[in-house]
Amino acid sequence: MAEKIKPTQKLATHTLTDLYYRDQNLVTDMMGKMSFTEAMIGHILNRTPTAADVAIIDAVLLALMEHGLTPSAVATRLTYHSAPEALQAAVAAGLLNVGSTFVGTMENCSKLLREMVEGTEPMDTAAKRIVAEHRAQRKHLPGFGHHLHKPDDPRTPKLFEIARANGVRGDYIRAIEVLSQAVDDSFGKHLTINATGGTAAVLSEIGIPPEIMRGFAVIARAAGLVAHIAEEREVPTARTIWDLVEEEIPYAGNALEDILDDGNDGGDD
Amino acid sequence: MAEKIKPTQKLATHTLTDLYYRDQNLVTDMMGKMSFTEAMIGHILNRTPTAADVAIIDAVLLALMEHGLTPSAVATRLTYHSAPEALQAAVAAGLLNVGSTFVGTMENCSKLLREMVEGTEPMDTAAKRIVAEHRAQRKHLPGFGHHLHKPDDPRTPKLFEIARANGVRGDYIRAIEVLSQAVDDSFGKHLTINATGGTAAVLSEIGIPPEIMRGFAVIARAAGLVAHIAEEREVPTARTIWDLVEEEIPYAGNALEDILDDGNDGGDD
Amino acid sequence: MAEKIKPTQKLATHTLTDLYYRDQNLVTDMMGKMSFTEAMIGHILNRTPTAADVAIIDAVLLALMEHGLTPSAVATRLTYHSAPEALQAAVAAGLLNVGSTFVGTMENCSKLLREMVEGTEPMDTAAKRIVAEHRAQRKHLPGFGHHLHKPDDPRTPKLFEIARANGVRGDYIRAIEVLSQAVDDSFGKHLTINATGGTAAVLSEIGIPPEIMRGFAVIARAAGLVAHIAEEREVPTARTIWDLVEEEIPYAGNALEDILDDGNDGGDD
Amino acid sequence: MAEKIKPTQKLATHTLTDLYYRDQNLVTDMMGKMSFTEAMIGHILNRTPTAADVAIIDAVLLALMEHGLTPSAVATRLTYHSAPEALQAAVAAGLLNVGSTFVGTMENCSKLLREMVEGTEPMDTAAKRIVAEHRAQRKHLPGFGHHLHKPDDPRTPKLFEIARANGVRGDYIRAIEVLSQAVDDSFGKHLTINATGGTAAVLSEIGIPPEIMRGFAVIARAAGLVAHIAEEREVPTARTIWDLVEEEIPYAGNALEDILDDGNDGGDD
Repeated sequence: MAEKIKPTQKLATHTLTDLYYRDQNLVTDMMGKMSFTEAMIGHILNRTPTAADVAIIDAVLLALMEHGLTPSAVATRLTYHSAPEALQAAVAAGLLNVGSTFVGTMENCSKLLREMVEGTEPMDTAAKRIVAEHRAQRKHLPGFGHHLHKPDDPRTPKLFEIARANGVRGDYIRAIEVLSQAVDDSFGKHLTINATGGTAAVLSEIGIPPEIMRGFAVIARAAGLVAHIAEEREVPTARTIWDLVEEEIPYAGNALEDILDDGNDGGDD
Repeated sequence: MAEKIKPTQKLATHTLTDLYYRDQNLVTDMMGKMSFTEAMIGHILNRTPTAADVAIIDAVLLALMEHGLTPSAVATRLTYHSAPEALQAAVAAGLLNVGSTFVGTMENCSKLLREMVEGTEPMDTAAKRIVAEHRAQRKHLPGFGHHLHKPDDPRTPKLFEIARANGVRGDYIRAIEVLSQAVDDSFGKHLTINATGGTAAVLSEIGIPPEIMRGFAVIARAAGLVAHIAEEREVPTARTIWDLVEEEIPYAGNALEDILDDGNDGGDD
Repeated sequence: MAEKIKPTQKLATHTLTDLYYRDQNLVTDMMGKMSFTEAMIGHILNRTPTAADVAIIDAVLLALMEHGLTPSAVATRLTYHSAPEALQAAVAAGLLNVGSTFVGTMENCSKLLREMVEGTEPMDTAAKRIVAEHRAQRKHLPGFGHHLHKPDDPRTPKLFEIARANGVRGDYIRAIEVLSQAVDDSFGKHLTINATGGTAAVLSEIGIPPEIMRGFAVIARAAGLVAHIAEEREVPTARTIWDLVEEEIPYAGNALEDILDDGNDGGDD
Repeated sequence: MAEKIKPTQKLATHTLTDLYYRDQNLVTDMMGKMSFTEAMIGHILNRTPTAADVAIIDAVLLALMEHGLTPSAVATRLTYHSAPEALQAAVAAGLLNVGSTFVGTMENCSKLLREMVEGTEPMDTAAKRIVAEHRAQRKHLPGFGHHLHKPDDPRTPKLFEIARANGVRGDYIRAIEVLSQAVDDSFGKHLTINATGGTAAVLSEIGIPPEIMRGFAVIARAAGLVAHIAEEREVPTARTIWDLVEEEIPYAGNALEDILDDGNDGGDD
């Protein structure tokens, strides 16, 4: 069997007395000198974070940290109720909701924007083509529309403002704005650029690969979910959620007939 | 059935045009004005973060973000290899390792410190009693010792330095230092205060309840695990890890005899 | 560095043409010849399953497979809605609910039963002492009471009937029945032996260690959760659950005042 | 706001004294009368299981339960070491590995088979077209090839034998055999139909929708992972795995130079 090439890692090492994250000494170069956001950017992206990196990533993390009693928060609260011995499992259950339905759109949106920025077509031609193709295939256009925020998701213009104030080139922001115009023209009404669309654009501006974008949503939401656990400890909701669901999504199978025939009065009171 | 009291939540709300995290408008009060660390402190702890809060939490998050190819990182890398469609699941698999063995010690340590700070015994009497009790029950003293960092885990004095520079009262830091002296006296050799012990002390200084402490380890490690995924995409290790484990932890059951009797040469080459 | 002793595993091996589970050839000795239940018993417990093993484990798996829209099922349905690309993650989110609150009681109950069976006290003396101790410490007695099933959880007598029909010695069943009498005497009313109590007794009868018992609940519930996903695909409930929770657990923080002052009408319609 | 239609569920209900799974009384109709496999088929597929259903699903569950120290087993063992208080979390971490790389191929394979069985092309024409298309796009053909089992994965012919002995029509088995011939002709060498390919065919024979197939892999593997936990309790491997990985996948970043310059001897001995 041929000798396999052994992979290596460049994220961390240690001696008896020191720890290194990538090429920096954790204790002497990092702790007390940089924020968590700066440290994670350097660690994930393997580069010295710029001011624009930090400003944009901080804004993105804030925008994605919380959105109330979403599926992720409900999964976390229920799981914490079921297994309070394992806070980490409750957060993990919530994070498993950071999937394609709500957050994966970020990646697909950023791929469209890249196509517009890097392609040879004029941007508005590309935008019209992309919208037409999605409509022809009855596919949702990732990054557009929000069932709660109308006419506009307020997070998006703020992300663009922060990015521009920090001197990004603006190609991806312009691309999504051109795409947005093409969307509105095609549908004959205004659809907002939502927070995942806005995030896709600003993360593209600082060179975050689409395949890693979801990671920032995971980190942001982890913090939000810890807040939900802290609140659940003070004001439990899990039992109420369970009762609500059992009452409002009732059993409707054939066994009901047997039960009614028996005059049996059916549970929980 | 008596009317149940409906619980409420105070973490987030929204209108058509605005989002609020607790009592602040996300877009006008928070984004562009505060770091992710500040935002998470306010959100989790329901208070306006002080400079000490931010300095200490940033330092703690850095200290806990990464420690190389630990069980959490290995679980994340393997899971990402198995299911690259679900980055969130790979992070979740890693976070399920933020359990009692490595991180839960933080909570137990902080409970001992609270006993020393809030109790009526003189601190050094309490320390001697706690050490004696743990030794009598052959229980590990949480927050002490580290198999890699000798004589001292360098993260701990740095955490204390940052906390003191930011004007904390210092009761919990003093408690763990008194406890450390009792440990060394009892064992007749020096055991380091490790990073979970140091973290327990500084998080206690700013009033983080023990039951929530693990949450900061989860948030920190989420960022570290995203970095492991980013590296795994560039330099895959999962297949190597699998091969290593299969080779070095071989099958040793009775079926081997059948296989050898058959002259069958056993797989994978 | 001293040579470390390498651990081995005895669960599986393979040649180019054969697979072995423990000491059996999967294809020639197992597939087509045994049920999944038989195979898992042999695999987990490392013994040839008896008829009693199979009858009892089958009954336990059925009893624990499903209980309607419990926290585990709700977590699974929400997660499937959020990440339909990863069915495995939806099941995992649900399984994270198989924790100490609902299922861990099985382990604690079985430890009490072992104390009664293996101890030197007469069984009824031990039972009275255990009940008294739990009441004195205001601790819930694991395995007793159920908020839905009154006067008796019907699964428990059926588990005992199946176990006895299959010739178990009956020491643990007798122990829990003696304990049940002591509970009723102490409380002056009847509390049912619930399904986790019944399961603890019958799994103890066939020698399942308490630390592994929860594993059978995990396997059983995995099947139930796949059924919930299959139904969710036909009759989606996740969006309804989300709406219910947002409506019934409303925001009650201070930001409401700002919102009302603005005459802003608050979302989602 | 228009009245929303409330969804219902048909999986379970209960009265004070009875539980129903779908339309059957758990205690009087199911426990003691059917195996776990029969119960899960009825529950997931909403039909009375046939003998063929039970034989095929049992064989599939056995075939997918275990494959040694795979990524799923390693993730489970590491997580159990990190958080022994939460067995369910260790199983969940392993199950998160039942993703597209190893098991998702089952779904894609079954879609190709359906295309061959339900389409208007002659089967061998369809087979040649499918192989040609995959080769042109350099896409792996799902269900074919196995790095450990050569020339043939022994599980596949056994699955087909069991299915045929139980009187299935055989359309999907024939389809994958025709596809296999086209694969061999195109590549000029034999590639095995692997266990996921074989499973796809036999589950299609009994009408399991592709989107649910992965669920049976999850249930099967849950049992295998509980066995890994049981063994890990007796013969711990997690620490060895950690050491192996740290040693064999070393740090190779720039910090090494600083460390060497300092004459610092680098950790863990």
